[in-house]
Amino acid sequence: MENTIEGNKELNTSTITVGRLYDMLCDIHKEDNNRRVVRLGRVDPTDNPLFRTTAVALDAITRALHSYNFNCYPPTVGLLEAKSAVADHLSTDLPHKLSADNVFLTLGGTQAIDIILPSLARPGANILLPKPGYPHYDFRATRCVLEVRHFDLLPQRGWEVDLDSLEALADENTVAIVIISPSSPCGNVFTYEHLKRVAEVASKLGIFVISDEVYAHVAFGSKPFVPMGEFSSIVPVITIGSLSKRWFIPGWRIGWIATCDPHGNFQKSGIVNRIIDYLEITSDPPTILQAAIPGILKNTTDDFHSNNLIIMREAAKIFYDGCKEIPCLTCFHKPEGAMVAMVEIDFSQLEGIVDDVQFCTKLAKEESVILYPGVAVGLKNWLRFSLAVDASDLKDGLNRIRAFSLRHAKMS
Amino acid sequence: MENTIEGNKELNTSTITVGRLYDMLCDIHKEDNNRRVVRLGRVDPTDNPLFRTTAVALDAITRALHSYNFNCYPPTVGLLEAKSAVADHLSTDLPHKLSADNVFLTLGGTQAIDIILPSLARPGANILLPKPGYPHYDFRATRCVLEVRHFDLLPQRGWEVDLDSLEALADENTVAIVIISPSSPCGNVFTYEHLKRVAEVASKLGIFVISDEVYAHVAFGSKPFVPMGEFSSIVPVITIGSLSKRWFIPGWRIGWIATCDPHGNFQKSGIVNRIIDYLEITSDPPTILQAAIPGILKNTTDDFHSNNLIIMREAAKIFYDGCKEIPCLTCFHKPEGAMVAMVEIDFSQLEGIVDDVQFCTKLAKEESVILYPGVAVGLKNWLRFSLAVDASDLKDGLNRIRAFSLRHAKMS
Repeated sequence: MENTIEGNKELNTSTITVGRLYDMLCDIHKEDNNRRVVRLGRVDPTDNPLFRTTAVALDAITRALHSYNFNCYPPTVGLLEAKSAVADHLSTDLPHKLSADNVFLTLGGTQAIDIILPSLARPGANILLPKPGYPHYDFRATRCVLEVRHFDLLPQRGWEVDLDSLEALADENTVAIVIISPSSPCGNVFTYEHLKRVAEVASKLGIFVISDEVYAHVAFGSKPFVPMGEFSSIVPVITIGSLSKRWFIPGWRIGWIATCDPHGNFQKSGIVNRIIDYLEITSDPPTILQAAIPGILKNTTDDFHSNNLIIMREAAKIFYDGCKEIPCLTCFHKPEGAMVAMVEIDFSQLEGIVDDVQFCTKLAKEESVILYPGVAVGLKNWLRFSLAVDASDLKDGLNRIRAFSLRHAKMS
Repeated sequence: MENTIEGNKELNTSTITVGRLYDMLCDIHKEDNNRRVVRLGRVDPTDNPLFRTTAVALDAITRALHSYNFNCYPPTVGLLEAKSAVADHLSTDLPHKLSADNVFLTLGGTQAIDIILPSLARPGANILLPKPGYPHYDFRATRCVLEVRHFDLLPQRGWEVDLDSLEALADENTVAIVIISPSSPCGNVFTYEHLKRVAEVASKLGIFVISDEVYAHVAFGSKPFVPMGEFSSIVPVITIGSLSKRWFIPGWRIGWIATCDPHGNFQKSGIVNRIIDYLEITSDPPTILQAAIPGILKNTTDDFHSNNLIIMREAAKIFYDGCKEIPCLTCFHKPEGAMVAMVEIDFSQLEGIVDDVQFCTKLAKEESVILYPGVAVGLKNWLRFSLAVDASDLKDGLNRIRAFSLRHAKMS
């Protein structure tokens, strides 16, 4: 059964989806034993029973349902009141206020990527993507013939962008740089100063910034979340947002694109029109869910969010401490944002395991722990953990990984 | 302002979406007067205040919400209980029963088209589409480089398929024929015998049938709705379905693809795998809405549907009788299914109006009535009416069209 993955030529980030990888790893587990599976792979916050969405979200849908006003087809560019609510929500933290015209509603953050990338593509163009990153960017870029150039995130520097490499990577055909902030899959929060430097370098290169903020405000360490739109007077910014992670409702598929662009560069360059054209030919978010957005954004209490950050902080501590007990794994940076983390595997300490895919395959088979190999997020021989899980599952999973590592330890 | 449409080279079914056309016609109206607009263009059943969805549908969502079990990401191939419910629902009327594996959930019927057409496309392939038809098929086929060949629906024969023409149209590169049943935009219901003939011709040509049944059971004349799957032992059938029209919830975006294929041809030819591949890379229907499907399908009463058919029957009568009072319009076939109808314009009776687009543009401007020109559904110089509107609106609209026609009548 290991051959399913290991022998599969398609296992690279541009041709296999993370969803299929997840299914394959789960299948491997199922084939061989009946032990309870510990899922530390896919980042679905609803995997943690403590992560229940707020009653405010249920009320917002219920009110939309009982009004009977939102069973109609969605308007082509989205429900005005929902777009306005997103604009107001984002503007709270921004120097330049947004209006409904700056917001486009999407089916989660993933469809936002599906729309933005082809809107930027033109023959010969390239885009700068982080490594490690979110594989859907690579996948979508490849499909719209947008050349991908990867820049490194530096584990020894708290996963900051390798700014020095950007100028060598970019050329006159580079259209944008993508930053995921707080960072998936690295779990760090970028500082104000670092994001400002990213904006300055992008401005110097004459490219846009796409800031994927689906984990906006999920910052539970010492650094606050800073929206990239803060620097929109330096460089035009397209922000991707979603209710999925912070409200624990990924299954509602509510996301958005927002243009933070006080000088109107996206209008002038035709990108806004291309986004609108794309929205017309793609599936719309259901009206009934669009209608819930204003209520959710306006009525959610601060307590809901702050309690959840306490849970994430505790998960990060369990994870970081647990990793220290596993000799072959190194976590360079204690997670402080998002719901994910990366650790490096030291194969010199392991016998008969040669790469991350084999590590994850054997782990699924022997310990019923589902983890993503780093190659799925562009960083071979690392592992990606979801921290959006029950604390006892996280502890159990780490203990099993420790047992697995010790069992496969190289005799010195 | 008329030039916006008339001068627009893009106004053909493969490059302009019906949504944008609708917006353009509404804009024309808005520019010139403040009269209450009568919308007989877009087919949104929620435009008729009598078409309220059933409390069963609201309960189904409410139960899904309060269980907190469906806030998670959707499973890659859809929620098993929802797929099973659709399979059971369709099987009631079919000789060969379907299972959950035959069903794929989509964001309404439109995304089903978005998935099926590229799954059938290969270099040099062509597809047979009805004329008039649903423009999204033409649009989507063009985008996946699937050559479109149109066959006629015959108004004088109750909009039956011109079966005799099919053999001349098809060749060894033809992959499928699309039939929309009950018919949009024609408003007819195909007989058992005629559908069987379509199946037999398709079988002889060695092609599949795609049966778009988003108006399944919306049959209010003398002929019952017959699902194409009835003939799946003659020819493999892919059915497209949706809750949008019959339950008056297009804004919930709940649709499906079902394969009716007792001999397993879609499996053998790889089409099922291509559909699954496509589903993985497209946006999924929100889990919370998928979860409502079983409750909606199982608990909706027969009364709900039969009452709605009475309303549609009355609308068809108002429409058919009203058309008779408008000299320049001919309705060849009294509507008996779906929620739409086509009428032919006799330009010899009109002064200064030369085509259907000009007719609709002037009508929007002068009478604030929004109608689609036939060219939008592939039949130049006809008009497409939505009948899913309030009876008083329909009467008012027809009266305004009559006044418009008389005002523009050619002096004899």
